[in-house]
Amino acid sequence: MIKLNCDLGESFGAWQMGMDHAVIPHIDMANIACGFHAGDANVMASTLKHTGECKTEIGAHPGYPDLAGFGRRTMHIAANELINLLHYQIAALEGMARAQQQQLSYVKPHGALYNQMMAEPQILTTVMEAVARYPTPLKLMLLATQQTGLHSTQAKTMGIELLFEAFADRRYDNNGHLLSRSQPGAVLNEQQIIEQVEQLVQEGTVTTNTGDNLAIQADTLCVHGDNPESINLIKRLKQLCSQK
Amino acid sequence: MIKLNCDLGESFGAWQMGMDHAVIPHIDMANIACGFHAGDANVMASTLKHTGECKTEIGAHPGYPDLAGFGRRTMHIAANELINLLHYQIAALEGMARAQQQQLSYVKPHGALYNQMMAEPQILTTVMEAVARYPTPLKLMLLATQQTGLHSTQAKTMGIELLFEAFADRRYDNNGHLLSRSQPGAVLNEQQIIEQVEQLVQEGTVTTNTGDNLAIQADTLCVHGDNPESINLIKRLKQLCSQK
Amino acid sequence: MIKLNCDLGESFGAWQMGMDHAVIPHIDMANIACGFHAGDANVMASTLKHTGECKTEIGAHPGYPDLAGFGRRTMHIAANELINLLHYQIAALEGMARAQQQQLSYVKPHGALYNQMMAEPQILTTVMEAVARYPTPLKLMLLATQQTGLHSTQAKTMGIELLFEAFADRRYDNNGHLLSRSQPGAVLNEQQIIEQVEQLVQEGTVTTNTGDNLAIQADTLCVHGDNPESINLIKRLKQLCSQK
Amino acid sequence: MIKLNCDLGESFGAWQMGMDHAVIPHIDMANIACGFHAGDANVMASTLKHTGECKTEIGAHPGYPDLAGFGRRTMHIAANELINLLHYQIAALEGMARAQQQQLSYVKPHGALYNQMMAEPQILTTVMEAVARYPTPLKLMLLATQQTGLHSTQAKTMGIELLFEAFADRRYDNNGHLLSRSQPGAVLNEQQIIEQVEQLVQEGTVTTNTGDNLAIQADTLCVHGDNPESINLIKRLKQLCSQK
Repeated sequence: MIKLNCDLGESFGAWQMGMDHAVIPHIDMANIACGFHAGDANVMASTLKHTGECKTEIGAHPGYPDLAGFGRRTMHIAANELINLLHYQIAALEGMARAQQQQLSYVKPHGALYNQMMAEPQILTTVMEAVARYPTPLKLMLLATQQTGLHSTQAKTMGIELLFEAFADRRYDNNGHLLSRSQPGAVLNEQQIIEQVEQLVQEGTVTTNTGDNLAIQADTLCVHGDNPESINLIKRLKQLCSQK
Repeated sequence: MIKLNCDLGESFGAWQMGMDHAVIPHIDMANIACGFHAGDANVMASTLKHTGECKTEIGAHPGYPDLAGFGRRTMHIAANELINLLHYQIAALEGMARAQQQQLSYVKPHGALYNQMMAEPQILTTVMEAVARYPTPLKLMLLATQQTGLHSTQAKTMGIELLFEAFADRRYDNNGHLLSRSQPGAVLNEQQIIEQVEQLVQEGTVTTNTGDNLAIQADTLCVHGDNPESINLIKRLKQLCSQK
Repeated sequence: MIKLNCDLGESFGAWQMGMDHAVIPHIDMANIACGFHAGDANVMASTLKHTGECKTEIGAHPGYPDLAGFGRRTMHIAANELINLLHYQIAALEGMARAQQQQLSYVKPHGALYNQMMAEPQILTTVMEAVARYPTPLKLMLLATQQTGLHSTQAKTMGIELLFEAFADRRYDNNGHLLSRSQPGAVLNEQQIIEQVEQLVQEGTVTTNTGDNLAIQADTLCVHGDNPESINLIKRLKQLCSQK
Repeated sequence: MIKLNCDLGESFGAWQMGMDHAVIPHIDMANIACGFHAGDANVMASTLKHTGECKTEIGAHPGYPDLAGFGRRTMHIAANELINLLHYQIAALEGMARAQQQQLSYVKPHGALYNQMMAEPQILTTVMEAVARYPTPLKLMLLATQQTGLHSTQAKTMGIELLFEAFADRRYDNNGHLLSRSQPGAVLNEQQIIEQVEQLVQEGTVTTNTGDNLAIQADTLCVHGDNPESINLIKRLKQLCSQK
């Protein structure tokens, strides 16, 4: 079964973002922001209340220390300092989760950190090391690419487990990369999303921009819940993913 | 035996504060800042390295979210939000400590939060509740006052243990309050500090500003290590406190 | 003529708040957040673009340095430090306004600072002193109360001008205070708002909670524009206020 | 005459950095931090008090919004957003300076922003545009390199003036770059610093790592004042620079 994961707890102080309350009942895995790019202690506690009620699996969603940039601006941070930043955020969420009788099970880096981790092997190694050295065993969520095997081998060496995620709403090219948003057809409409997810669930492949089939080995599918339409779509995708 | 406790890990980024490396070998309990009023993930990791090497007992030293004010400015924060702020900070430090094979054993609030907790019963109750609801059993450090019995009773009701601290370098009045710094003789010199600590260790009393004896029930003594002189004094106080 | 003022530029980074673009054409005075409780350099530049296009009068809306609390949490800040915090924020907005060929004309403190200023004479004096010492002549906006005369006299002594604002959507008591939100009838519905503003514009009075008439000397009316309904109401109030 | 410039006002809250009070009487130009990488409103006001007393020329020293990293971590910020960040910081300092009857005369970017500006022409163009669009005419301080002519031409086109700075304490290579700190002899000792500055003042050249002479066209020399020795050196360099 392919699980649905969603970035949550991205409000901050008086600012609301996302429809967490409406989304949580329909997803399997909640990636919870940890206060550096979004989320604050109150938002985290409130999000955990919802995931506790829905028995949703929870993961830490740590990012760069950049509230004003929402963690989307690339920052160059030394490896040992990045490990500390990750440990701090994961730990803060883990303790707050334990205070609500919940256990953290994975880590999914956010925004620019996620992108850099997928683009630069040194940063991926640093992130893996952070997860490996964290005292609670946690899985690390990465983008499902054609390097899945390579990434799994590295993770095994470092003693951690990986989770691979696919994207429902983006067209892939034949190398397994997401087509740049600037290219026509890169972002899928609702019907295309449903078709892509059906194919992924039933056959483990996606249809690329050239019409070819490409195998994608995904444990989970990243979805977004920012408005009522997207929540209806999440419900539909949940059905599709539960069929197998 | 009266233990020595000291506020540590109060550097931030490029800014140094305190002589942690020199102090840690001579104290028993390290109150480690958690990133809100001072400390950052790198400072916390570095402080924990030292406490790990010296096998120092460690506690969380959480404060108000006010770096520019060093947590010394009173803030009015709703009770449930204060609990979340405390949990976040305690949790961040606890996870980082566990990553270095260390266990957190207590909480000592910082600065304005500490002062408000001692002055306003509602805030003390909120802090106690935060500690009680935190999933790892932790003690709470308070100022030793004439309300020690009352505080212990309340703590027992809430299911937590307390630690009471005395001050080495301040003159007490007959009500067990510290004399305001604005009054003559409020801050003790080195010889007076040594006399006060000797008396506290040997007889469990201090000599007040009127020359009377006052009983102070203290588990620990708060010391400061900002310069070479203060570190020599800490060594001397450590000897005094170890005699009994 | 009573002018409409509205708090604006309260988005931050990726977080949207308010419908500034829709509100600005219908108000007279824009109170622009300066980055401490809300707003950031990009939001400020964008808000100024709109006020420039609409030739809206602009004022600085400085607050406590407390993003997570949206400047709504009381903080105790020393007088000289509060002056510096106010100067910094006013100056940041003024320079950015000048970069878009706009001139700042007033200051309206935000949130907890506004409330403390109205409740504690010492803080009002400090705020007045900050405005008086700022190098560009700026007016200070206060709540219109029964102390209006007293406040005007003090302001004159300090060499600054005041603007008094009334609230459209809140019931007053006979002392000219706003009824606490916890009391029944404290928050007016749309019809009551329109009646209160008509009366204020036509007769310079409001009907208090006991049904009596109370004179309110207001230069401006504070309105809010968070949703399409409130924007329609602003248009209606603008008509009412322009009649005289 | 070559002027001495120094980064100042880099304390933050309770954390001290630098010996500003001792340095200011001996330098010509104070680069004042603006609150994003260091400095806060109180530190800025205090630094301005000193520069006012010494009639020191003052410039804004803006950096990335990264207190924990002291503005030394590279961040990727979109051009229009970087302009806003620069305007905000420059404006905050300018208004506070005007409140103390002082005028801002130049801008020197800090840390990673300075390095990126010298390494990436697009970022230099963005910084120049920010200065050009700022409503008060300000000069921009750059590193004196072999591109000085090119940079001057570009600045002229954009309507701004440049200031070029040299480094007293670093060995240059034949391309006019500073030798990397990792190379032997890259950082000069006190005697070498004095020789380099004498040569620069007398002949407008430096002796490179191969023993050759290289012309450096410098308006100002960057000095540091972190300890009593460095302040004595500053006094000596001030004498050397005043000779011609």
